[in-house]
Amino acid sequence: MPNFPDRVHICEEGPREGFQIEPGPISTAAKIRLIDALSETGVEHIQTMSFVDPRRVPGMADATEVLRGLKVKPGIEYSALWFNERGLRQALDIGFLSIEGKITLYPSETFLKNNLGRTPEEHRRKLGDLLRKYGAEGIPVRRVSISSAFGCNFQGETPVDVVVRLVREALEIADEHDLTIETVGLADTMAWGTPESVKRTVGAVREKYPDMTLSLHLHDTRGMGIANAYAGLQMGVAHFDGSIAGLGGCPFAKHKGAAGNVCTEDLVFLCHELGIETGIDLDALIEASLIAEEVVGHALPGKVAKGGNLTALRSKSGTAH
Amino acid sequence: MPNFPDRVHICEEGPREGFQIEPGPISTAAKIRLIDALSETGVEHIQTMSFVDPRRVPGMADATEVLRGLKVKPGIEYSALWFNERGLRQALDIGFLSIEGKITLYPSETFLKNNLGRTPEEHRRKLGDLLRKYGAEGIPVRRVSISSAFGCNFQGETPVDVVVRLVREALEIADEHDLTIETVGLADTMAWGTPESVKRTVGAVREKYPDMTLSLHLHDTRGMGIANAYAGLQMGVAHFDGSIAGLGGCPFAKHKGAAGNVCTEDLVFLCHELGIETGIDLDALIEASLIAEEVVGHALPGKVAKGGNLTALRSKSGTAH
Repeated sequence: MPNFPDRVHICEEGPREGFQIEPGPISTAAKIRLIDALSETGVEHIQTMSFVDPRRVPGMADATEVLRGLKVKPGIEYSALWFNERGLRQALDIGFLSIEGKITLYPSETFLKNNLGRTPEEHRRKLGDLLRKYGAEGIPVRRVSISSAFGCNFQGETPVDVVVRLVREALEIADEHDLTIETVGLADTMAWGTPESVKRTVGAVREKYPDMTLSLHLHDTRGMGIANAYAGLQMGVAHFDGSIAGLGGCPFAKHKGAAGNVCTEDLVFLCHELGIETGIDLDALIEASLIAEEVVGHALPGKVAKGGNLTALRSKSGTAH
Repeated sequence: MPNFPDRVHICEEGPREGFQIEPGPISTAAKIRLIDALSETGVEHIQTMSFVDPRRVPGMADATEVLRGLKVKPGIEYSALWFNERGLRQALDIGFLSIEGKITLYPSETFLKNNLGRTPEEHRRKLGDLLRKYGAEGIPVRRVSISSAFGCNFQGETPVDVVVRLVREALEIADEHDLTIETVGLADTMAWGTPESVKRTVGAVREKYPDMTLSLHLHDTRGMGIANAYAGLQMGVAHFDGSIAGLGGCPFAKHKGAAGNVCTEDLVFLCHELGIETGIDLDALIEASLIAEEVVGHALPGKVAKGGNLTALRSKSGTAH
């Protein structure tokens, strides 16, 4: 028998992933409608919006209005992203957002240079500044994250030992700042992962750091998302990010059916069919997925929302054999 | 280490699956263009067209013209479907088609009744008539196939022991007609399969019939196609059907991104990334996938054709770590 977890925890990132990349314009009311629908599904965590420069990401210009318009549901953790002091202030102003920092390291110097314009040394210095600020503000940091943990378009495959070294370095940085890390996130940012590389990397990190909770962020750009999640489940991983209806899309081919993050309802379907609890009502999630398509105005890549849940078919058919 | 096969054999069913369901109209030249492109990929078997009533399936009205227009490539097995004597005659007339019969059994009496209008007894009688005809014509029958081997919308889950019993019955029917069966096909016709049910069913059939070649036909209606194929690979299955770009679509939601058969290029990508040979040139397959989208005039669900092969990125990046 595989080492499946009893319970899987999903962080829903669809709104943030989708609103930042969709050409829209999507009305504030439509954004609220989608996030409110997600709040009714049983999902525990929703990453809602980003506080970023509206000239660069017009879909996030109404982040504050969207958040202030939500029917905030007790028991759900709502989060947001920010990339500078100003964004952090805006996120703190909302009041009900879960504000946490994390330590993110990158195996690819080229990616770091291209994306953040930093050398690894500069990145660590800036990370240090940020962590001191979090400390001063009382903002918790419980998570480290390794970007491009399975491969990167600039530097190719990410060797397992590089990932293990980056986790060690991230934990050393945490130590220097008296932080207690609980979770190690492995992100397949550029969709290089395969079920086997997921197993190898998860296995190696777990062997070194058996007390850490592992979390997977799996992009579906090459169609391996669900298979990679299954590999993670086989390794006992219980924390996954997902994106409703597969919202997001990859920069190579947005709006052509290519996906960003693994589709939440397909992942929940997989879990339920394997007998793994998620606390999520799949039918409500499918409704939210159909709302996501309405909100963006075109078909999205998720499958189960079109193919249908099996529960109704099962109860109709009984145990006919 | 998983029990992966060294070599996977793929039967490309995209043209037949696609042309029968796409609203089109797709010109004869466009159909020829797609099949000819597939002939250049290294794929060993292409299921091309169906000889059916053109009033019921207008996309197959030009089956003969399409086949006569192909650049037939030596070494590739081209096949077609037929459902009656007239269709069989038309297929035989083409000359270069691989003409084989198979024995298909159905776990669901309701499906059999709804789809073919037959009771199980009638089905077996008609199957007997057909096998006698094949015998008289010298048409080989080397394959049995179990439809809805993992579940069915009318009767729910298909228990493993039902599949094993149906395989036994199919082999008994073959024996009665002096046929030597080499391959057992398990079809997830209505997309009820999960990686675990694929493993259980493949395992049970293999245990009883270790000398049979097993083949999987996996519909991706609920997004489990690639994960189910991975489960099959973990069990050593080396024969899969695939559909270029995910052509086909399910009747629930055609042309909305919902898939029919598992996408061939995504499956080939998975195999190659796992180090399994397919004999297929993935870049040529991606080209064929883009042609498929041109031919049908809309985006199709395949991912790798949009996300891109890793080979070029890999050689560009070298072993940078």
